[in-house]
Amino acid sequence: MSESEKEKQTEEILDEVANDEVIEDVADEAIDEEPVKSEVEVLQEKLDEMEDKFLRASAEIANITTRNRNEREQLQKYRSQDLAKKLFTSVDNLERAMAIEVHDEQAASLKKGVEMVLESLRNAFKEEGIEEILAKGQPFDPTLHQAVQTIPATDEFPADTVVEVLQKGYKLHDRVLRPTMVIVSQ
Amino acid sequence: MSESEKEKQTEEILDEVANDEVIEDVADEAIDEEPVKSEVEVLQEKLDEMEDKFLRASAEIANITTRNRNEREQLQKYRSQDLAKKLFTSVDNLERAMAIEVHDEQAASLKKGVEMVLESLRNAFKEEGIEEILAKGQPFDPTLHQAVQTIPATDEFPADTVVEVLQKGYKLHDRVLRPTMVIVSQ
Repeated sequence: MSESEKEKQTEEILDEVANDEVIEDVADEAIDEEPVKSEVEVLQEKLDEMEDKFLRASAEIANITTRNRNEREQLQKYRSQDLAKKLFTSVDNLERAMAIEVHDEQAASLKKGVEMVLESLRNAFKEEGIEEILAKGQPFDPTLHQAVQTIPATDEFPADTVVEVLQKGYKLHDRVLRPTMVIVSQ
Repeated sequence: MSESEKEKQTEEILDEVANDEVIEDVADEAIDEEPVKSEVEVLQEKLDEMEDKFLRASAEIANITTRNRNEREQLQKYRSQDLAKKLFTSVDNLERAMAIEVHDEQAASLKKGVEMVLESLRNAFKEEGIEEILAKGQPFDPTLHQAVQTIPATDEFPADTVVEVLQKGYKLHDRVLRPTMVIVSQ
């Protein structure tokens, strides 16, 4: 490369660099000009933003209201479950007492009293939506029944049938409060 | 009134009417000019309005949330009251059975069973926050006690004292589920 050729190339490079700078300057000016918004534009943006916030808040009010109504309904529906669970043992004991054969008058009178109390407790359960779980002769359902013993299937009780109830189970609406303890055929 | 006087009066009236009209015209112009707002003013008003709506919605969210928490707490606190109210008669009957003097073995065994059931029911009540209302020997309180009979005051029972309980009363936390039926001194 001759000296003159070298000079020419150097000039070209310098020109290119100079041109680049000019282009960059133009770009800088464009960026600087963009954020200059009119007062109307600024206000319109703020209004859009505030409207968005208001619409979100309105939607949240609707959501909270629905969620709370559902929660209240659930609480109301299952309100009796805690006390009810604590009564099952008493009902078991009263039912056991009812199974006793009595011979004398005083015991018969006491048993009559127990029967009335039991009837009253059963009515209270019913009114609160607490029901005995169907079990004997039903297909075994692990969501309702708890198998504590198995016996071989027969003609009367084919496989996976509840053969005997060892302890009554109860449900409140669709919720099992105590599963039925059962003997199941296999 | 002379003819000239009449004319003068008529002129005055006409002047007044004319002046009124002029004043009205001026007023009309003022009203016409007032609604001419700049776009900025219109947007600023809309923004203020929207911000106000958003703030109201936010306040409503806070209110709803607090109200719902309170409602849930109340539902939770008094959840057992409906079932409990239906059990009081059973407890009354079991307590009445406990008061019977038994002579033979079978009745004694049944009575023992009843005693256990009663104990279990009382524990269930206690766990659910249901308490017997203090009555005998207490100052008569019409919010807790229901007087069904009065007897003259004595040294032991000064006026307005609960002398005897005819039927136990129960409360759930601060709420009376059944007032105590009492005999009160007067």
